[in-house]
Amino acid sequence: MRAVDIIIKKRDGLELSKEEINFFIEGFTNGTIDTYQASALTMAIYFKGMTDQEATYLTESILHSGDILDLSAIEGIKVDKHSTGGVGDKTSLVVGPLVASLGIKFAKMSGRGLGHTGGTLDKLEAIPGYDINISEEAFIQQVNAIGIALVGQTGELAPADKKLYALRDVTGTVESIPLIASSIMSKKLASGADAICLDVKVGSGAFMKNEKDASRLAELMVNIGKNCGRNMTAILTNMDEPLGLAVGNSLEVIEAIDTLNGNGPKDFTELCLEVAAHLVLAAKLAKSVTEAKELLQKQIENKEGLHTLAKLVHAQGGDDSYIYHPEKFKKATHEYSVLATQSGYVGHIDALSIGNAAMILGAGRSKIGDAIDHSVGIVLAKKVNDKVCKGDILAKIYANQENVDDSTALVLHAYKITEEQVDSKLILKIVK
Amino acid sequence: MRAVDIIIKKRDGLELSKEEINFFIEGFTNGTIDTYQASALTMAIYFKGMTDQEATYLTESILHSGDILDLSAIEGIKVDKHSTGGVGDKTSLVVGPLVASLGIKFAKMSGRGLGHTGGTLDKLEAIPGYDINISEEAFIQQVNAIGIALVGQTGELAPADKKLYALRDVTGTVESIPLIASSIMSKKLASGADAICLDVKVGSGAFMKNEKDASRLAELMVNIGKNCGRNMTAILTNMDEPLGLAVGNSLEVIEAIDTLNGNGPKDFTELCLEVAAHLVLAAKLAKSVTEAKELLQKQIENKEGLHTLAKLVHAQGGDDSYIYHPEKFKKATHEYSVLATQSGYVGHIDALSIGNAAMILGAGRSKIGDAIDHSVGIVLAKKVNDKVCKGDILAKIYANQENVDDSTALVLHAYKITEEQVDSKLILKIVK
Repeated sequence: MRAVDIIIKKRDGLELSKEEINFFIEGFTNGTIDTYQASALTMAIYFKGMTDQEATYLTESILHSGDILDLSAIEGIKVDKHSTGGVGDKTSLVVGPLVASLGIKFAKMSGRGLGHTGGTLDKLEAIPGYDINISEEAFIQQVNAIGIALVGQTGELAPADKKLYALRDVTGTVESIPLIASSIMSKKLASGADAICLDVKVGSGAFMKNEKDASRLAELMVNIGKNCGRNMTAILTNMDEPLGLAVGNSLEVIEAIDTLNGNGPKDFTELCLEVAAHLVLAAKLAKSVTEAKELLQKQIENKEGLHTLAKLVHAQGGDDSYIYHPEKFKKATHEYSVLATQSGYVGHIDALSIGNAAMILGAGRSKIGDAIDHSVGIVLAKKVNDKVCKGDILAKIYANQENVDDSTALVLHAYKITEEQVDSKLILKIVK
Repeated sequence: MRAVDIIIKKRDGLELSKEEINFFIEGFTNGTIDTYQASALTMAIYFKGMTDQEATYLTESILHSGDILDLSAIEGIKVDKHSTGGVGDKTSLVVGPLVASLGIKFAKMSGRGLGHTGGTLDKLEAIPGYDINISEEAFIQQVNAIGIALVGQTGELAPADKKLYALRDVTGTVESIPLIASSIMSKKLASGADAICLDVKVGSGAFMKNEKDASRLAELMVNIGKNCGRNMTAILTNMDEPLGLAVGNSLEVIEAIDTLNGNGPKDFTELCLEVAAHLVLAAKLAKSVTEAKELLQKQIENKEGLHTLAKLVHAQGGDDSYIYHPEKFKKATHEYSVLATQSGYVGHIDALSIGNAAMILGAGRSKIGDAIDHSVGIVLAKKVNDKVCKGDILAKIYANQENVDDSTALVLHAYKITEEQVDSKLILKIVK
């Protein structure tokens, strides 16, 4: 078998076999196939795509390049969720405690933020003492004990993906649906959960700019997961605006706590219940999404979700008093209001600009390794379809600096004011 | 400027600027742009193509990566020819002497053969003493003195092409028309001629499998040459069968001598006159192709072409008595006949198989650096549309070995015998 023949086969639009895909990925990972052949193949995949079967083989090949978590020591069904990257997306902090409070095992590894999207690990570290680095053994023990763990990556999951992504990033093939699907799914499958709910974002600020591409990505990931024996759901969600109101680490933790107290923003609460409901269905604790949502609503009303978040924080060394007294979170030194310059309705809030406005305040990283300021961020006062009069507060900026002109400009740029209300809904489609 | 942005721009089908192409080729040549980015760009070019303007910029950028021959010390118009690679193609050995005998300066650098196609340099070295390695100064002096030189490459012409071709060869982008065009034209332009006639082969054994692709390649190369101020002609020729009868080094030199004596095979003579006529037109020695061919025919009848070949051989240290006494060429020790196994008409002679049959006898190289046996080869006895009876001699194999089973099988495989005569013509189209 020769790498060049595999490239030509894909270039000509033919379907690659399992053996060919394994040969290429193994060779690429161990260095016997050169990076220039890998970049040629990925560009050919960009143009010619992959069948669901090919993408499954690719995912499995990347998956088997590294460690695979064995969660068999955890009793019952293990669930996981994943978002393709949103602004203001603190869903894991609500969904995890809610489902765990029902006895479903939520064993999740998260990542750090980069660019305009935040990372769950960074948000958790806003809670004093919270330790994301725990051993695989302690991880399994904790999930068995309290039903939930939210940690950083243990072991070396899918190293081929890391190498391949770094190559795609500099060779113009990031935006390939089968390559995105296999990258996400190889890491999700390596984390060992039985049921996975994916949140695929659609919109100008998301990876997928339109519903057609997002649907294809969602269907492909669901099929890859099913081909590998997992219970899969994908939810297509609109990224017309940031999720919820808060963008920034401790601000988002506080919003998650509010939501577990039943006081969360409408859109964010809706998404958390939808994602959690599909995990409840997978665990066979309900017969319909409606029934599942009723169960989850009860866990909000009786505060069991909130208590489970506190248990999680405590188990991982954090100060759980913050969960019951969010006013304890360290506040930014300055608060600024961004005022509307015209009247009308909010038609769109560009999530990318809001994410960048928060990032330059110190809430995010422009490059790997940058330090994070947990207290800063943005809290939106107006969301899509809200009525706005000139001079109204659109958003508040929380900063530890005096000059926030750049962030203010980005927030103002993000708000598109229209004359009439627009047709907007958060959840576009469920793919099973 | 970032290499990845240039890749993405081409991937999205946009036209690259001169600055972008220069940035990429310069960076690739000096190593500041990695090979994996170059292979991604070439794959994007494979799928999205290039405009004539982009291909011109690419050609010029590759051209300027190395030495450019300055032929200004040669008086008058300097002409050159190029073939995209044929089997039995000894055209330069006839066209050069013919046009030079009319006072047109034929200053040509040739290459060696690889695989099933022979190289002009290898053919010339079948003449005892012929030296292909002469200095640039001696090259110019010789063209001024006798009107012709046929040498190996002097200096380092278009090193970026060498590097880029090696990369394309292992990453599946050899078959891209703008990349083929810029590769050929960068080297041709670096050789400094004012007028160039290109022979673009079409057919199963050629780079270009169909007339549409071959036309596009021919038009693109003609436009690149014109954009760079050269007088250009391209001739599309059918590669339904090898050119002429002889395939193998000294056998082909003998056929060239026969042709200059007026006794050449019909198809080969036709092509030589066509190519030479367009160079005569470029030199303004005739007003029409017909008039130019008459002039050239006279140079065959009065043996001036033959004398010029002898002068060329003498000037480059070869024994010119071989030109007048081709029976002096060393003969292969064995001669075998390949007999027809059925009756009918010759419908097709696969040039690739005939080329390979000669190569494995020792007439060509399977890899760079292999030794060549100048005396061996194949001489066809039947050409396309000839009537064949079972048992007739199709071809003769000249070998220095006793077992020629593999070559015989390849020759038999090459001949396709049909019931009726086919519609076949050598010259398909002239592109100016």
